[in-house]
Amino acid sequence: MACNCANQYKKLDEKDIKFLIELLGEDRVFIGENINEDFSHDELGGISKMPDAVVEVQNTEEVSKIMAYAYENNLPVVARGSGTGLVGASVPLHGGIMINLTKMNNILEIDEENLTLTVEPGVLLMEIGKYVEEHDLFYPPDPGEKSATIGGNINTNAGGMRAVKYGVTRDYVRGLEVVLPNGKVIEVGGKVVKNSSGYSIKDLICGSEGTLGIVTKAILKLLPLPKKAISLLIPFPNLEKAINTVPKIIKSKSIPTAIEFMQREVILAAEEFLGKKFPDNSSDAYLLLTFDGNSKEDIERDYDRVAQICLEEGALDVYITDTDERKEAVWSARGAFLEAVKATTTEMDECDVVVPRNRVAEFVKYTDELQEQFNIRIRSFGHAGDGNLHVYVLRDELSQEEWEKKLSEVFECMYKKSVELNGLVSGEHGIGYAKRPYLFEQYGDDYMELMRNIKLAFDPKNILNPGKVCQ
Amino acid sequence: MACNCANQYKKLDEKDIKFLIELLGEDRVFIGENINEDFSHDELGGISKMPDAVVEVQNTEEVSKIMAYAYENNLPVVARGSGTGLVGASVPLHGGIMINLTKMNNILEIDEENLTLTVEPGVLLMEIGKYVEEHDLFYPPDPGEKSATIGGNINTNAGGMRAVKYGVTRDYVRGLEVVLPNGKVIEVGGKVVKNSSGYSIKDLICGSEGTLGIVTKAILKLLPLPKKAISLLIPFPNLEKAINTVPKIIKSKSIPTAIEFMQREVILAAEEFLGKKFPDNSSDAYLLLTFDGNSKEDIERDYDRVAQICLEEGALDVYITDTDERKEAVWSARGAFLEAVKATTTEMDECDVVVPRNRVAEFVKYTDELQEQFNIRIRSFGHAGDGNLHVYVLRDELSQEEWEKKLSEVFECMYKKSVELNGLVSGEHGIGYAKRPYLFEQYGDDYMELMRNIKLAFDPKNILNPGKVCQ
Repeated sequence: MACNCANQYKKLDEKDIKFLIELLGEDRVFIGENINEDFSHDELGGISKMPDAVVEVQNTEEVSKIMAYAYENNLPVVARGSGTGLVGASVPLHGGIMINLTKMNNILEIDEENLTLTVEPGVLLMEIGKYVEEHDLFYPPDPGEKSATIGGNINTNAGGMRAVKYGVTRDYVRGLEVVLPNGKVIEVGGKVVKNSSGYSIKDLICGSEGTLGIVTKAILKLLPLPKKAISLLIPFPNLEKAINTVPKIIKSKSIPTAIEFMQREVILAAEEFLGKKFPDNSSDAYLLLTFDGNSKEDIERDYDRVAQICLEEGALDVYITDTDERKEAVWSARGAFLEAVKATTTEMDECDVVVPRNRVAEFVKYTDELQEQFNIRIRSFGHAGDGNLHVYVLRDELSQEEWEKKLSEVFECMYKKSVELNGLVSGEHGIGYAKRPYLFEQYGDDYMELMRNIKLAFDPKNILNPGKVCQ
Repeated sequence: MACNCANQYKKLDEKDIKFLIELLGEDRVFIGENINEDFSHDELGGISKMPDAVVEVQNTEEVSKIMAYAYENNLPVVARGSGTGLVGASVPLHGGIMINLTKMNNILEIDEENLTLTVEPGVLLMEIGKYVEEHDLFYPPDPGEKSATIGGNINTNAGGMRAVKYGVTRDYVRGLEVVLPNGKVIEVGGKVVKNSSGYSIKDLICGSEGTLGIVTKAILKLLPLPKKAISLLIPFPNLEKAINTVPKIIKSKSIPTAIEFMQREVILAAEEFLGKKFPDNSSDAYLLLTFDGNSKEDIERDYDRVAQICLEEGALDVYITDTDERKEAVWSARGAFLEAVKATTTEMDECDVVVPRNRVAEFVKYTDELQEQFNIRIRSFGHAGDGNLHVYVLRDELSQEEWEKKLSEVFECMYKKSVELNGLVSGEHGIGYAKRPYLFEQYGDDYMELMRNIKLAFDPKNILNPGKVCQ
């Protein structure tokens, strides 16, 4: 089922490089040893391949000309942002041209009457947050990796912690400028709030992992900035009790901004990693909830109700983290979980399945069983409020051979379990290269064929990021 | 650019009808004179064509078998719900089989832990609202036509008044079961809150007006039911002042559920139509705002702030409609606008452009100019809060020839103006058959070709609802 397209492409030659240099100048075309090794992989690491050329683009016209040329000459192209992906989506499997979009990083317009922000794709998530907050506005999507580009976020339909209340990246993309594989430029959506004007190509581009078109501009939806936020750290005697409380919170009329779950061992790793104490580490499991609103009273009414629910369901206590110091202690730990877990082992791989919210406890319990069964360390934390788990399988002292075998068996079990619970392969990290087998297995031939047909509708020569998602 | 596919289809013959009767029984297959004339058109009226057979289906398997047969035998098929569309999307332009989905109208499951409702496509919008409210839950999309089926709503990505705060139908579709044109059945999405598992076919089906697949099941997202709602009726000295207030409301931190605008002449028509008085009809223009929340205090704080903004911007008064009687007077009038305007003339056609919210006033002013310029009555009302206007051009005493000429000229002007204001052809009614020329003009060849490629990715034989949207 994998893409057997390697032979169909032309190998980049002198003439092609000359074209690129004429278009961009020598300073923005990198070949051979001048290409930084970073461009051969993303954060996943397991899969890597050097592109034949990396080009730094500055505007839509350049992207369009490169694509038109590549299309004409049958050259594979991969577009890349910060390279913070976790599934190998931006690895140039067939070499060719890599378009580096990180210098197209201008914030073009903030429109305070329509509550939109227009940006180039290379703007970093952290820059967007900072910029709009200075205007008393709010861009809700909040993936953990703040140094990702907005282009990358759009292409993975990135989620993050605030999805419980605010939804995911797709929900905040109003319009896109897209360069198609043949170099044509289209604008989809716009500043409008509603749209029933033909097939929603905007929504198809969101989450397509750079395979259907290259986003060169995005119009994002903003909200008024909530004035206050408060977090509650709630210890439970065990994880099951903690997670089983979540559907009851969801059903209450107080919608938290985020509901995260964490276990003692992950907290201890974070404390060691940061050299800082978490406000409490004496319990086995915790829920971390955030509430936002426009006044302290609004928020208090909301969290009072939720705290009550938690206590009724067996919570041991409720810590209110309303001081800056406490907030910092909690959220810096939460922010460091991934790195902290990574620091305890030699190598790890992760799965970000999403299951219905009332099946999270069952899934985590199953990973505990797998840990015993395969005698391998598994750590998880994640978004209890939206059913999206991040489960890390740790290599520790396993040999390469043992590691590959066990990892593959454990992943196979986890994805099977996810299907059984009506879950899906990826909640927010995407499919890229690494998760294709699990997607193929879950969706089956008819569904995958339809996706491949859609890919060909955009890219009949299959030159844009080939070998990914559905190929 | 229109579809020249009439000759490519097989004409329905005895053998085909025998197949249908064997599958469904005689009672559920209608041919010739047994077909109710209603099935030849939707609410638009201007375009009509009788199908060769209407079949009443009861389950997914039947739909799948019919599609597989039609695909094999090259028969055109159109799926139909209540037929309340306004752009001819469900008219069987090439005859063939019409699949009537209105008897697939079971509510299959309410899942109170995951806040989802699973329904068949023929369930009516009004039934969904009533059912979920009985469970203290809320399905926010609120299009005016409550007798539409949910399948129809999904296929037009219907909007409605609450889009300001809650978004549109797409935002509340978590998963779909879809029968593809070749009869294969796929499930897209699910009960999960996040999803980055391949191209979002769910979002592509939403708003595809029955051209890409037939929705046979939908998993809808629900919210906790807000406990209270209050409306404010706010008179302004003129429409411009009223509408120019809207961006200021949007920017405040109090997000109303709905912001509608209306003019005196439409209110008078509604009073006459209903034989009931509106609470006030002395001013030229009104905003009607709704606020919902969980307590009277929450709502009061919100609307106090907004009322203040309106008064600062020149509102003449603020009427709070918190009694049942007043609410009924306001909302029954609002609900009757379309019918009331229709009753004042012989025939009318409508355009539902959507423009950025801060350009609404400009667009309405322009329709006033067109009214003068073409000496034709134009009435508008609509969703000031989301930029989606409903503009009605009234025939009155014009001859057929004059009417067609003027209508076409006025529409041409309006859609041109919408493009100039960065608007789009349709906010919520769709493109169907009637609005295709305006979509083609706005999007241009490259964009339309991409849409046609997507259509062929789903339906290489072009048998499902041909001649619509992009063809």
